[in-house]
Amino acid sequence: RKTYRICTLPGDGIGPEIMAEGKKVLAAVGKRFGVEFACEDALIGGAAIDATGGPLPDETLDAARASDAVLLASVGGPKWDTTDPAAPRPEQGLLKIRKELGLYTNLRPVQIFSALAGASTLRPEVVDGVDMMIVRELTGGLYFGRRERFYDEPGAGADGKPGQRAYDTLEYREYEVERIARQAFEAARKRRGKVSSVDKANVLETSRMWREIVHRVHDADYPDVELEDVLVDNAAMQLIHRPATFDVVVTENMFGDILSDEAAQITGSLGMLASASLGDGVALYEPSHGSAPDIAGQGIANPLAQILSVEMMLRYSFDMGDAADAVRSAVTSVLDAGLRTRDIADAATPMECVLGTAAMGDAVVERI
Amino acid sequence: RKTYRICTLPGDGIGPEIMAEGKKVLAAVGKRFGVEFACEDALIGGAAIDATGGPLPDETLDAARASDAVLLASVGGPKWDTTDPAAPRPEQGLLKIRKELGLYTNLRPVQIFSALAGASTLRPEVVDGVDMMIVRELTGGLYFGRRERFYDEPGAGADGKPGQRAYDTLEYREYEVERIARQAFEAARKRRGKVSSVDKANVLETSRMWREIVHRVHDADYPDVELEDVLVDNAAMQLIHRPATFDVVVTENMFGDILSDEAAQITGSLGMLASASLGDGVALYEPSHGSAPDIAGQGIANPLAQILSVEMMLRYSFDMGDAADAVRSAVTSVLDAGLRTRDIADAATPMECVLGTAAMGDAVVERI
Ligand SMILES: CC(C)[C@H](C(=O)O)[C@@H](O)C(=O)O
Ligand SMILES: CC(C)[C@H](C(=O)O)[C@@H](O)C(=O)O
Repeated sequence: RKTYRICTLPGDGIGPEIMAEGKKVLAAVGKRFGVEFACEDALIGGAAIDATGGPLPDETLDAARASDAVLLASVGGPKWDTTDPAAPRPEQGLLKIRKELGLYTNLRPVQIFSALAGASTLRPEVVDGVDMMIVRELTGGLYFGRRERFYDEPGAGADGKPGQRAYDTLEYREYEVERIARQAFEAARKRRGKVSSVDKANVLETSRMWREIVHRVHDADYPDVELEDVLVDNAAMQLIHRPATFDVVVTENMFGDILSDEAAQITGSLGMLASASLGDGVALYEPSHGSAPDIAGQGIANPLAQILSVEMMLRYSFDMGDAADAVRSAVTSVLDAGLRTRDIADAATPMECVLGTAAMGDAVVERI
Repeated sequence: RKTYRICTLPGDGIGPEIMAEGKKVLAAVGKRFGVEFACEDALIGGAAIDATGGPLPDETLDAARASDAVLLASVGGPKWDTTDPAAPRPEQGLLKIRKELGLYTNLRPVQIFSALAGASTLRPEVVDGVDMMIVRELTGGLYFGRRERFYDEPGAGADGKPGQRAYDTLEYREYEVERIARQAFEAARKRRGKVSSVDKANVLETSRMWREIVHRVHDADYPDVELEDVLVDNAAMQLIHRPATFDVVVTENMFGDILSDEAAQITGSLGMLASASLGDGVALYEPSHGSAPDIAGQGIANPLAQILSVEMMLRYSFDMGDAADAVRSAVTSVLDAGLRTRDIADAATPMECVLGTAAMGDAVVERI
C-alpha cells in the first residue's frame, strides 16, 4: 500500500475544526482507493506565535519539506492584529512558507455549484456558467519586496515638517513572469483556451515588462491560446459585468489577491472555494476563505472548501484523478441533497438540513 | 456679472463629443444663474502627443493654473498604447496634471439613479440604496514612486540566468495620509458619518503606517465618525456582498483605482459617474469612465458623466449649490422621462427614446 505523508497545518480560528473534516475525507479516500495518508500536524500562524514566539517554526518548515503535500486550513485573528512592524504576525507564517517552498503559482478555481447558484448577489443570468481559473503569481511583487518605515524623519512632512514615511517595493524578474505565464497558458489549454492577462501597464514599469514577457511567451510557444490584456481597474469591473466570459486570468501577486477574492465573492459562496499553491517541489492546498474568528469553536464552520482543497491535492500532487472526482461528486451530491452549513443556507433551507461542521464532513464521507 | 474661467480639456476618443455637451450645460447654467463661464480648450493626452510630442504641454499646465477650474473629458486610446518606457503615453498627461496641480483628493460618488436600478448586474435588492463616496489618494503611492527597468541584467534570472527586472515603489509620507484621512472624515460628517479605511496592513508597511495615522487623526479630531478598517481583498468582496452598507471609503491611490472602478460597475451605469480631484488650489473634474475609442466619432457616447462633472464643479469649486442641484435634477428628470443613450438603454427602451450624444445634452439643457 502506497503511503503519502501529508503535513497538516490547522492554524487559527475555524482552522482546526475544518481540518478535522479534511482528514476524515482523506481517510475515506484512502480506504476506498487503497492508499494511506499519514497526516502529521504542525504549527503555523497565531497558534505558532503563542507556542513558539514565531509564526513559522523551523520544525514546521522541515516537516513540510519532508512531506508529499501540505494541507493548510487558515491563519490569523484579531488576537494577533498589530501595526507594530517588529511584532510577529500570523500572516508572515503563510508568506514565509509560500516563499520557502517556492510556491509561485496560486491556482484559484472559481465555479458555481448549481445547487448554490442563488447564493450570488449577482443576477442568476449573469453568474450562469461562471467557471474561471485565477492564476496568481505568489512569491513576488509587493509581498516580498524591500519595505521600510522611517519614523519622524526631519523634512519628510509637508513643507519640511517632520514626519514618518514608509515604502514597499513591487519588483519582478523576467523568469518570474515567464514561468507564471507558462502556467497560465498550460492551464488554458486544458480548459477553454483563453487567457486574460491583468496588469496596469499604463502606469507601472513592472506591468509593462509583464505585458511584454507574457506576449513573447504566447507568441513563441502558445499561439493557439487566445490572449487578451486587461487593465486591473477594468478587470475589477469586467468580473462583475461579464464574469462568465473569463477562462484563465493571470496576474501578479497583489492584483491576484484582490481580484481572486472579488471573483470568489461573485459566486456568493466563498466557503466553497479551494486553492492550490504549486512550485517545483511539494505543493500546498488551502481554502480561499480566512480563519473566521467570529465563529471559531462553535462547530458551525463550512468545511467544504477544506474538503475541496483535498480534492485539488489528490489531483495535482498525487495524480489521483478518480479519487479527486469522487470527492467532488460527493460534495455535489451533498449539496444536491439540500444539505447546507449555515453560511450557504437560505430562508428556504429546512432547519434539519442545516448541518454543523462535523455533520457536513460526515455527509461527504458517506458518499465517498 | 461674475465670470469663471474654465480650462477645458477634451482629450481623446469620445472626449471632444461629451465635452461639447458639458459646455452646453455650462452655458445654460450661466444664463439661468446670471454668471459667465469662459471656457478655453487646451491639449492633453494623445491629442497633445500628436500635436506637440508630449501628453501635457506647458501651455496646458499654465492655462489650468490660470483658470478657476479644469474640466477634463478623457484620455487614451489604442493608437498610443505602448510598453516602451521611453515613449510618451496619454495617461502621463493625466498623472502629471494631477501631480502638478497638487490634486491629492479624488472624490468618486457612487450612486444609483432609481430610473437605472435595473442596469446593475447585481440583484435589485442588493444595490437598492447604494450611495457611497470613494475618497482616493491621488498623488502618491505606486503612481508616483521611483520605477526602473534593467534590461538583460546578468544574474537577474533564475539560477544566475540573465534576464530583465523592473520595480515600482509604493511610498507614502505621513502628511499625505493625514490630509486624505481628514478629507474622508470631513466628507463622512456631511453624509452618514461612517468611514471604511481600506489597506493591506497584514502585508504592506505603507498600510501599517496608513492605518496608524488614520486612527490617530480619527481619535484626535473625529471621534464622532464611525471608523472601520477593511483589508483590500476583503473590501473587493464586501463591495459586491453589501454595497449599500458603505458610506465613505478612503484608500491609497492604486487600491482606490481598482475599488472605485469596481464600485462604479456595481451601479451598472458607468456612463453616469463623475469625479472631482481636489487639492489646495484649482480643482479638476472628469467622468469616471474612459475614452471609449471603439465608439468615438459616432455621436452615440453618453455625455451624462461629463455633465455631472459640471455639477460637481459648480458645487465644489464655485459654491453654486443651487445651480448644481438644478443640473442634477435636470439629469434625473431626463432619465425619469425614459430618455437614454445606447449604453444605458435596455430591451424595453422604445427606439425613439434612445438619443445620441448631442440630443441627450439638449434634453438636459431644456430642463435647466
Ligand atoms: C493572509 C494574507 C497575507 C493572504 C494574502 O494576501 O496572500 C490571503 O489574503 C490570501 O489571499 O491567501
Ligand atoms: C488612465 C489611468 C492612468 C487612470 C488611473 O489609473 O488613475 C484612470 O484609470 C483613472 O482612474 O482615472
